[in-house]
Amino acid sequence: MRSHACGELRSSHVGEEVTLCGWVQYLRQDLFVILRDFSGLVQVLIPQDEVAAQLSVESVIMVKGRVRLRPAGQENKNMSTGEIEVCAESMEVLNTCRKLPFEIKDFVKKSEALRMQYRYLDLRSSQMQYNLRLRSQLVMKMREYLCNLHGFADVETPTLFKRTPGGAKEFVVPSGEAGKFYCLPQSPQQFKQLLMVAGLDRYFQLARCYRDEGSKPDRQPEFTQVDIEMSFVEQAGIRALIEGLLQYSWPEDKQPLSIPFPCMTYKEAMRDYGVDKPDTRFGMKVSLLFSSEFLKWMNKSAKSSVLVRADGSWKSPLGRLMSDTARQHLLQTTHANTGDLLLIAAGAQERVRPLLGKLRLQSAEMLEGYGMTVREPSIFRFLWVVDFPLFLPKDDDPGQLESAHHPFTAPVPEDTHLLYTQPSKVRGQHYDLVLNGCEIGGGSIRIHNSSQQLYVLENILKEDPSLLSHLLEALDSGAPPHGGIALGLDRLVSIIVGAPSIRDVIAFPKSFKGYDIMSHAPDFLSEEELKPYHISVVWPSVDSREDKQP
Amino acid sequence: MRSHACGELRSSHVGEEVTLCGWVQYLRQDLFVILRDFSGLVQVLIPQDEVAAQLSVESVIMVKGRVRLRPAGQENKNMSTGEIEVCAESMEVLNTCRKLPFEIKDFVKKSEALRMQYRYLDLRSSQMQYNLRLRSQLVMKMREYLCNLHGFADVETPTLFKRTPGGAKEFVVPSGEAGKFYCLPQSPQQFKQLLMVAGLDRYFQLARCYRDEGSKPDRQPEFTQVDIEMSFVEQAGIRALIEGLLQYSWPEDKQPLSIPFPCMTYKEAMRDYGVDKPDTRFGMKVSLLFSSEFLKWMNKSAKSSVLVRADGSWKSPLGRLMSDTARQHLLQTTHANTGDLLLIAAGAQERVRPLLGKLRLQSAEMLEGYGMTVREPSIFRFLWVVDFPLFLPKDDDPGQLESAHHPFTAPVPEDTHLLYTQPSKVRGQHYDLVLNGCEIGGGSIRIHNSSQQLYVLENILKEDPSLLSHLLEALDSGAPPHGGIALGLDRLVSIIVGAPSIRDVIAFPKSFKGYDIMSHAPDFLSEEELKPYHISVVWPSVDSREDKQP
Repeated sequence: MRSHACGELRSSHVGEEVTLCGWVQYLRQDLFVILRDFSGLVQVLIPQDEVAAQLSVESVIMVKGRVRLRPAGQENKNMSTGEIEVCAESMEVLNTCRKLPFEIKDFVKKSEALRMQYRYLDLRSSQMQYNLRLRSQLVMKMREYLCNLHGFADVETPTLFKRTPGGAKEFVVPSGEAGKFYCLPQSPQQFKQLLMVAGLDRYFQLARCYRDEGSKPDRQPEFTQVDIEMSFVEQAGIRALIEGLLQYSWPEDKQPLSIPFPCMTYKEAMRDYGVDKPDTRFGMKVSLLFSSEFLKWMNKSAKSSVLVRADGSWKSPLGRLMSDTARQHLLQTTHANTGDLLLIAAGAQERVRPLLGKLRLQSAEMLEGYGMTVREPSIFRFLWVVDFPLFLPKDDDPGQLESAHHPFTAPVPEDTHLLYTQPSKVRGQHYDLVLNGCEIGGGSIRIHNSSQQLYVLENILKEDPSLLSHLLEALDSGAPPHGGIALGLDRLVSIIVGAPSIRDVIAFPKSFKGYDIMSHAPDFLSEEELKPYHISVVWPSVDSREDKQP
Repeated sequence: MRSHACGELRSSHVGEEVTLCGWVQYLRQDLFVILRDFSGLVQVLIPQDEVAAQLSVESVIMVKGRVRLRPAGQENKNMSTGEIEVCAESMEVLNTCRKLPFEIKDFVKKSEALRMQYRYLDLRSSQMQYNLRLRSQLVMKMREYLCNLHGFADVETPTLFKRTPGGAKEFVVPSGEAGKFYCLPQSPQQFKQLLMVAGLDRYFQLARCYRDEGSKPDRQPEFTQVDIEMSFVEQAGIRALIEGLLQYSWPEDKQPLSIPFPCMTYKEAMRDYGVDKPDTRFGMKVSLLFSSEFLKWMNKSAKSSVLVRADGSWKSPLGRLMSDTARQHLLQTTHANTGDLLLIAAGAQERVRPLLGKLRLQSAEMLEGYGMTVREPSIFRFLWVVDFPLFLPKDDDPGQLESAHHPFTAPVPEDTHLLYTQPSKVRGQHYDLVLNGCEIGGGSIRIHNSSQQLYVLENILKEDPSLLSHLLEALDSGAPPHGGIALGLDRLVSIIVGAPSIRDVIAFPKSFKGYDIMSHAPDFLSEEELKPYHISVVWPSVDSREDKQP
């Protein structure tokens, strides 16, 4: 229906006859329409016989006309089409727009509830258009890299699956047979491993995953991960693939990525940053002091601080307590210089380190509150974290171990013998990818030996292996060594575009309560409508039932 | 872990040191291992100190060795690596394989239940590897065409949605709030239209869709469609896009497609083929005879046949009844020549035509049973069918109209005025894409006028418009003219590879009862496990409950 997109017109088009379609962004002097489409804005001088005043903002029109240079002095440098305008010979209103509760251009400033209710208007903002198109292009480049350059096969796996061991937080779907339910998977983990057993060699998928977490800030009940699995590969191979993948698909309007990414052990991360996903854009590291001696001056778990004055003297309650050597030692260990502030906490390492890790981030926030730039938003610091413990004590039952990530992760080869003696000491072949302090991906080399997998499930995790009998059988049918990774696409894109929430990089997100505010999902279904599914609602209590009935 | 893939080795590699990983396809003379990976087969001469007999078939091994020419006369022309073999210096067993219930190479001949139970073995067959890789490559080319060449944005839409009007056959998903349910969408129809209202301009998605149809042959509860929507476009524009899309992405090992595809009206299809998705690979058209006069010789709905003998005389009960002119007329209308067989049925057109349409397909089957090729499998005949009726009388209540496709399809412009007078006469701007007699896609230009959409929902379909209030509001907020289409990917790929069922182009399909035979999904959940979802099972009856309890 159109000859050009609004935003592509330049002085090189002057004299050309064009047909444009788009939305009325606004009117100027009842003479000019600023016309908008996906590509941008252009100024249109509307025919004299048309009464511009009748054109409501955001109406959809089609104009035919000729491109001409704007009169000297009237160019608009802030507009990519600012040198020209279209002198329209005809204009047709394709669809009118009712009075909207807000203007599109500053709509992003509106409350999020309003943005969600009118998502189809919110998405017209240039920021949301940019976010969605960048996401689409990023994903396309990733596919080119994996499919065309590295021989991966894009394979779709089922989303109507079964409950997995320990799979809380799964959505259930009643089947046609009474009492039987599907579950929506939290990841295609089992299928991607089965594809390796099937000899697919290299699999990837942009996989929709589901997690029923109720109201968690900035989580979505359905999310997307870049899901990858390879055969005959080791950790280094997968890390190199992902580094190449991100470098290749990185948006052109951002600083190119330099690879390889730095790599840090879990131990180092906890020691220096008090967290397993450190934001390495700034320093302020945590350091361990000569504890025993130091504890003389502080009672357990006490906190204190030291400000090193210009003259080298201390502003600190510790100042007068400590000997000169001790004070020198403290300054050396912490590399503290004039004007530096030391924040000190004493106590058990595993308790104090995470505490200082949080304190480190709070300090950064505070300084940024004062206008300092501590975490430069335009810098993207990727980091691998490796050598996680394979098992952790259960919170509710510390005597019992659970998988730190999932039961399919293989042990670090040197630690394999510890599986049978001191499982809590085993490191897993797991790797996390961290970007600016957020975990955006994680993966592992998998167990490909059936009896080892059985031992982990039965003897260490005390889980019923029959639930995974198909996987155990598969591992016993010629399973190749294999491993993989999954990247959280929503989180990755939101960091790249600097969005405050992943909801800003998802076209139709759910509210933090899991609601679609625009279409009112989820919605009530009558007992009658539920009959075919062989289920009925169990109302929490009679009175709440009164409120809740539609 | 490897230097080469098994299937890529040629005489040009002779002398090279290689490391290969793969599966033991079979053993020859306890000396040779035929090694298989995703790329094909290669013959490996194993080290003398290794005892080949201990190598079970389908075990996974790694061999290091040197490529050499096979001794003269021992080349294998049927093997792409048949000129060479690898003389292994070392061999390592990476994983052993238990005794399998069948051999991989002829596994495709096994029962489908067995194939499904051991899908990870079934997928090792060369045919299934070909099917999945062809599907992956086809989809990749489609993405290149849409994203890179035509500026489409790949946008993901939610699968946790709400029930749509008249949406039977939807899966429901209990939410965290008692009584409220999500529904899994049968298509992203509403979202794709909202994206056009949002100014996305060109949207596509490989969309997972869900339909709870219970046991229907060759249907899957979850399936994938190539989902497309465009703004400022007309029917011809979308048809041209799809023709270009298929031509661009068509597999290189098939005959290239010639475009444009032929186009036929619904009327013509029913008239000449007795069906709205004709297989145009063969003739045997249906023709209408000079009815009134003809009925003299046949009683209503009677069937008869005419065989035209070599001498031009007839083998038919009609022979003696009819006048010479009538017989001449019959031969002319049907273009019947010596040896031709005419199958004749009399009755109301709308009843007899579909009947002859089925008879036409049965005749083709019968002839193919006798070894004739009527429907050449290597020929791909695409066909557009257009000008469908917009509404059809309901089966259960013929006085009432329902949408022939869906309530968002726009009327053909010339027919719009009939909406308000004779809706049953209105043709819709709907188009079906047919391939070899299968409907593989369908789409339409949508209604973009809010009041027209409201009129169709309220006055013609008698549906509650409040369920679609968000869409009606969106259409009233500056909705551009728009239209789209969806292609059934599973069906398309299955026709391209000549698979008997779509299950052969899906990695992990469900059985015709909707079960995953490998992992046993769906599965029973206890009342305890169902508590968080505020639902309980309604067992059909006590005795069947006994059977059904796990």
